[in-house]
Amino acid sequence: MIAHRVLFLVLDGISDRPCEALDGLTPLAAARTPVLDRIAGEGVCGIMDSIAPGIRPGSDTSHLALLGYPPQEYYTGRGPLEAEGTGIHMTAGMIGFRCNFATVDADGLVTDRRAGRISGTGPLSEAIRDGVDLSPLGVGFRLESGAGHRAALALVGEGLGDKVSSNDPKKEGVRPLTIRPCTDDPADRATADACNEFIRQSARVLFDHPMNVRRMEEGLPPANLLLIRGAGKMGAFPQFSERYGLSGSVISAATLISGIGKVVGLEHIPVPGTTGSVDSDLDAKVKTAIRELDKKEFVLMNIKGADEAGHDGKGVQKRDFIEVIDAALEPLLDLPDTLIVVCADHSTPCSIKDHSADPVPVVIRGPGVRTDRTARFDEISCAEGGLHRIRGCDLMPIALDLINKSHKYGA
Amino acid sequence: MIAHRVLFLVLDGISDRPCEALDGLTPLAAARTPVLDRIAGEGVCGIMDSIAPGIRPGSDTSHLALLGYPPQEYYTGRGPLEAEGTGIHMTAGMIGFRCNFATVDADGLVTDRRAGRISGTGPLSEAIRDGVDLSPLGVGFRLESGAGHRAALALVGEGLGDKVSSNDPKKEGVRPLTIRPCTDDPADRATADACNEFIRQSARVLFDHPMNVRRMEEGLPPANLLLIRGAGKMGAFPQFSERYGLSGSVISAATLISGIGKVVGLEHIPVPGTTGSVDSDLDAKVKTAIRELDKKEFVLMNIKGADEAGHDGKGVQKRDFIEVIDAALEPLLDLPDTLIVVCADHSTPCSIKDHSADPVPVVIRGPGVRTDRTARFDEISCAEGGLHRIRGCDLMPIALDLINKSHKYGA
Repeated sequence: MIAHRVLFLVLDGISDRPCEALDGLTPLAAARTPVLDRIAGEGVCGIMDSIAPGIRPGSDTSHLALLGYPPQEYYTGRGPLEAEGTGIHMTAGMIGFRCNFATVDADGLVTDRRAGRISGTGPLSEAIRDGVDLSPLGVGFRLESGAGHRAALALVGEGLGDKVSSNDPKKEGVRPLTIRPCTDDPADRATADACNEFIRQSARVLFDHPMNVRRMEEGLPPANLLLIRGAGKMGAFPQFSERYGLSGSVISAATLISGIGKVVGLEHIPVPGTTGSVDSDLDAKVKTAIRELDKKEFVLMNIKGADEAGHDGKGVQKRDFIEVIDAALEPLLDLPDTLIVVCADHSTPCSIKDHSADPVPVVIRGPGVRTDRTARFDEISCAEGGLHRIRGCDLMPIALDLINKSHKYGA
Repeated sequence: MIAHRVLFLVLDGISDRPCEALDGLTPLAAARTPVLDRIAGEGVCGIMDSIAPGIRPGSDTSHLALLGYPPQEYYTGRGPLEAEGTGIHMTAGMIGFRCNFATVDADGLVTDRRAGRISGTGPLSEAIRDGVDLSPLGVGFRLESGAGHRAALALVGEGLGDKVSSNDPKKEGVRPLTIRPCTDDPADRATADACNEFIRQSARVLFDHPMNVRRMEEGLPPANLLLIRGAGKMGAFPQFSERYGLSGSVISAATLISGIGKVVGLEHIPVPGTTGSVDSDLDAKVKTAIRELDKKEFVLMNIKGADEAGHDGKGVQKRDFIEVIDAALEPLLDLPDTLIVVCADHSTPCSIKDHSADPVPVVIRGPGVRTDRTARFDEISCAEGGLHRIRGCDLMPIALDLINKSHKYGA
């Protein structure tokens, strides 16, 4: 009666507050969710503060906490995690950034921070890799295109700091900013200098790149500037397999989440047809998770769409997508020998269109788990469950114990 | 669906243990409290350890925790907080004390530690301010009379320590003690010397003060000695408005609580007719809170009487005063756009006539709050609520999140 493998199913931002559009219910409480309810009925439920009560979590800090890496100790900014997710192998000391391909006009004003939501920017990144040279500054770089207008940049070199500002003016119709060091540390000055030089040279490469020439001919905004932000120094992460003695994979269409998985040593398993949005192919995702659990002892699967609906403030759409998720999860019910943990990483209330610190529902179901009387997976019902109120960092130790992989403290 | 202002209603010491006089109910469970019950029914309930489980809180340490200033980090003794509440503006480094006006007889023995519960001691303090000179010791001082026999003293000067004993013998019929440094630190020696000199000189001023001459003619014990205790160095408190981005006020008849409010930067709003006892004008207090919430984003209101009944061990009186409080709170029910937090600062069980570490009931009610199934405000019912068991220091972060003023940790 002991499971030998663990599935963490993170329903991103699924947790909410009472919605006016749903007669005061949360989307999760309003949704018909027979599969999640059956998991709740067969498991032990509770509520969870991803970080701590009242602390509003980012998706990055919360996922680190869920994986048992306290963000207070391990979080060094979103840039290096996005960079890893985008395909740049980050090692300790590298400085990572998130980037947007953007449009500036002839006067140097930012006219579109997302270059008309351009996609397929691989050739632009390739041209920048070939045409930009930071070696006179003693700095190397990696650049990779991500989904849509997104990309990631990493700087490599001795003595680089991560306390620098962004060139993103955060609005349109103004000039991009100069990146500045936020401290007097020469390391931050060195990073700021490298960033500004990178932006200058890459703009020259982008200016007359054939892809941009073609876009202008078609009346589309050219991707002729990189906006870079989220600077962070890559930290040293004890690897998941050594920390817990478990092999593991991450399944997520969001580069941030796959990046977090990769930095802690989980294998990223891409799933064709998944988008991180409400049009994602969830059946494929669930099938991949089930297949992966035949090979690995731990799988983190993140399903993102409900979070998006929360950010858009669309309670009805969120409820409906929750029902879609629920239906897609049905094959998990028959998964033998598996500890299933279902939770959110944070609440994303439609009423505030952003993350909040409201605790999230959590259920743990599998062989050996003490079942409580809760048989409904929503914020209110789970608060009455047998887990009470735990923290994100409690989840891995609890799961390890339930699969008999925890170590005795004392004798 | 988001409140923009917060009322913290601290029902001082209202929490209790089963009382024999109330057939095993707590005073709060025995009381008829339709207003508090409605707030509980419309909100989310829980229990709270002001400091931590099993830690018996003072009113000072608990209020610091409730305001989000961990006492482990910010508490430096009761003296400086009482001094601020009594009207002395304390700045970092000043040494504060609580004082009693007391009576010694011709043999130098303390015959009444409260000088016959004298009141109206303003002229005595004024005479001491005029007649005592510590400048040969390089020390300045402030002295202010408080309610009844109480006063507060602050020493100002370079190199003063706060590790000194008291001259209060804590019983009558014995001589007052000499104040001694508790360490070998010259700073503590300097403070002890200044205290002893202050006590010597002030006794000379009080000896033949007209007010004391008159009291003796009337057969009343003269206030001819100051007993001083609770030495503490004033700490540096990050100001509430900067810490949380909220303007705020404190409404309390207890100088300790108003002092705590003032040191963190809340404006103290005095309310005529309030006494900090069971005869207080609670209607005026509630009206003042409601008016204040039109001007400020945060109000801390402390209602003290139930604590007093607990200290006196009077369960029935405590129950009855709780019903008086409940009736006075009714105008709060219709307050729009407001997050209301009701709790105690600590338990004051009638059975022990002192504070205890039993967790206190807490309810949070306002727009956007996830309502649980608890509809009764007492120690046992709230333990079944959706907040579960939180700590005093969690309260401000949770409230800030619910009014959308918390900052995301991560991205």
